[in-house]
Amino acid sequence: MMDVIQNVKKEDWSVLTKRPTMDNGTLDDTVRSILSAVKRKKDAALKEFALQFDQVRLESLAVTPDEVKTAISLVSDELKEAINVARENIETFHSSQRIAEAMVETSSGVTCWRRSVAIEKVGLYIPGGSAPLFSTILMLGIPAKIAGCEEVILCTPCNAQGAINPAVLYTAHLIGIDKIYKVGGAQAIGAMAYGTETIPQVYKILGPGNQYVTKAKELVQLAGIAIDMPAGPSEVLVIADETGNPSFIAADLLSQAEHGPDSQVMVLSDNETVLNRTLQALEKQLDDLPRKEVARQALKNSKAVLLSSINECVEFSNQYAPEHLIIASKRARSLADNIKNAGSVFLGNYSCESAGDYASGTNHTLPTNGFARNYSGVSLDSFVKKITFQEVSQQGIKTIGKAIEIMAEAEQLIAHKNAVTIRLKEIEDV
Amino acid sequence: MMDVIQNVKKEDWSVLTKRPTMDNGTLDDTVRSILSAVKRKKDAALKEFALQFDQVRLESLAVTPDEVKTAISLVSDELKEAINVARENIETFHSSQRIAEAMVETSSGVTCWRRSVAIEKVGLYIPGGSAPLFSTILMLGIPAKIAGCEEVILCTPCNAQGAINPAVLYTAHLIGIDKIYKVGGAQAIGAMAYGTETIPQVYKILGPGNQYVTKAKELVQLAGIAIDMPAGPSEVLVIADETGNPSFIAADLLSQAEHGPDSQVMVLSDNETVLNRTLQALEKQLDDLPRKEVARQALKNSKAVLLSSINECVEFSNQYAPEHLIIASKRARSLADNIKNAGSVFLGNYSCESAGDYASGTNHTLPTNGFARNYSGVSLDSFVKKITFQEVSQQGIKTIGKAIEIMAEAEQLIAHKNAVTIRLKEIEDV
Repeated sequence: MMDVIQNVKKEDWSVLTKRPTMDNGTLDDTVRSILSAVKRKKDAALKEFALQFDQVRLESLAVTPDEVKTAISLVSDELKEAINVARENIETFHSSQRIAEAMVETSSGVTCWRRSVAIEKVGLYIPGGSAPLFSTILMLGIPAKIAGCEEVILCTPCNAQGAINPAVLYTAHLIGIDKIYKVGGAQAIGAMAYGTETIPQVYKILGPGNQYVTKAKELVQLAGIAIDMPAGPSEVLVIADETGNPSFIAADLLSQAEHGPDSQVMVLSDNETVLNRTLQALEKQLDDLPRKEVARQALKNSKAVLLSSINECVEFSNQYAPEHLIIASKRARSLADNIKNAGSVFLGNYSCESAGDYASGTNHTLPTNGFARNYSGVSLDSFVKKITFQEVSQQGIKTIGKAIEIMAEAEQLIAHKNAVTIRLKEIEDV
Repeated sequence: MMDVIQNVKKEDWSVLTKRPTMDNGTLDDTVRSILSAVKRKKDAALKEFALQFDQVRLESLAVTPDEVKTAISLVSDELKEAINVARENIETFHSSQRIAEAMVETSSGVTCWRRSVAIEKVGLYIPGGSAPLFSTILMLGIPAKIAGCEEVILCTPCNAQGAINPAVLYTAHLIGIDKIYKVGGAQAIGAMAYGTETIPQVYKILGPGNQYVTKAKELVQLAGIAIDMPAGPSEVLVIADETGNPSFIAADLLSQAEHGPDSQVMVLSDNETVLNRTLQALEKQLDDLPRKEVARQALKNSKAVLLSSINECVEFSNQYAPEHLIIASKRARSLADNIKNAGSVFLGNYSCESAGDYASGTNHTLPTNGFARNYSGVSLDSFVKKITFQEVSQQGIKTIGKAIEIMAEAEQLIAHKNAVTIRLKEIEDV
């Protein structure tokens, strides 16, 4: 299924680090017409699309308190407890990202500082489909609440009976999101971007989705709505040395591969035995998986690469820029210092990717498809703007005024210069 | 020229906070074809566009060390000194944004942390045109260097003689940027996005520009290149109470208005006398400006609004979300606490906008056009990704493993569960 690739020259790495290409050119028109319908006909359009795409006739788009109450009663205590473990860790880690910055006197009488201020209105999108992704509600909702966003709304599609998975409603309720709307797909993104009679307009939209959702996010971004990050298929890269555990690595590769047929998994090592044992373990574990056909498809895009040293593995990984990077080695900590491009990094044999997916405390909304080169994952930062402030005293304008006048004049912006001159003159005149 | 608007009901504020609309729909095709030519023909396309748009035949696109040396000798000592004042303050403030975050043990045996890692390759765009914007090189180049970006390149158009303004070359050299290319417009954005024989490809592009540049940045963003932020015309909003100085305010409004005919300036007060005196001072100061025709155009889009209280002014300003906000009041500090949406805030009568434009230390690349609701200005953050790390020990997986298993199963992701089960089992077996 997967073979070990070896003897690849460095100049040919780019062939291996390239992602499978996706063609979604034809999506554009479809999604544009959905967005345009939502903009014009608002709630009515959302209800029409629900009937057309999801075969459900909705009286009301908003989830009622009664529906939430029922959901709470349907979720097992065991799952509630598990969600709570995750919630606490995610809260702890994301709260630690709130750092008050000091005021800085840059010149005598010139004080500058920054303040993080919550984005007032944010919209979270949670896909429907086969699995209820309540964990993503924790990942997006918790930092939104810590940041202090005033309005946090959630859109997610319902099933043909008009119901949303109880774990989804329970989790939203748990973290204090009570504006939940039964709308999915590109139309949900449109609803949050433009607002409808029922669904409030937001300033930023976050959350995963299929190619329609992704395209819709791209298009509303051009209209001024911020989004979390560009999207792409999920992926993991494992760097293993002779201390890496092949069964664990195989399990991690499969946990990524089961996400979808377009997922990609990569394993790099300087040790051929570890690679071969990993591929053997992979075959063995694959057969027991309910989603084995999905995983098998994903493994076709996937690669095991033997390189000449662990440092070369790190270098290859930096070029690939994986969403998830597992360093299956006892030297993981020191190797991690050289990581330049990755979404989230998992150190050592016991740091499985699913720990970060659910409960270690880090965020699982991460840059994929090579975007780890230039984007960060979701964090508290995703829900704030950082506003700068400056206070220039009389002393301050005397200190830096001359420099401003000279620079403004050199840039031929005389009114900029005058704004300083008029102040300096007044100070002199007193 | 400007009249005081009064007695506006709160529900009608949205008419006043709306920006003049820009129509650049027809740009799309032009810019797409420029980008496509650069992608295919690389350097040759850049030279053709230089001839076509800028009437200059370029042998080489790269600025030579000799050209830089000549530029250094042409910049006056006075300007060099002024640039140095600005450089030091910008360095001081942006260095203070580098904060090492602590490691957090979220559960027993589960340690999470973040590390800021420089984006390896960034490209800065500096427009040409009438004024040489060397100050923007400081604003983009200094944080890029502090972040530790390995490759920082700069594109800027040359004049018809093939020369770049000496102050631009001097400033780039001062902060250690030595890869400077003579290319402007949408083609410069394409060159940095795709790479050419001469110009290296980058992962993120920052810098201001005309509507072609803006459109090109939008389009390459869709292809995975990060950009600083969406663009729009520059703007200032001043909140003044009875302690605000009308001449100073007028000077600040004009310093914004001279930027371009599409600039917008707003002044809000609870004091009619201050507003009237400001408008009188504005008329008086306008006549002496070299760019008075530009400023006069901009003032047509501009508004002076009398509101019932200073708190209402703050509320209006939050709704408008100005790029620059000046609080011309002795109570500026306490009013600033209530600012929710702004790019950069200037407190008190001596904090003119031009202080922040050049030398206070804050960044002048800021979200405009209402984007201060959902975007931050450029800062050290703009040049890094924040990578998360987690280290889960044997103890750690015992602590959170059960929760992961339960959640993964509830999301029907059995391979995710297995990755934990296989580890827990191994620990038990030992």
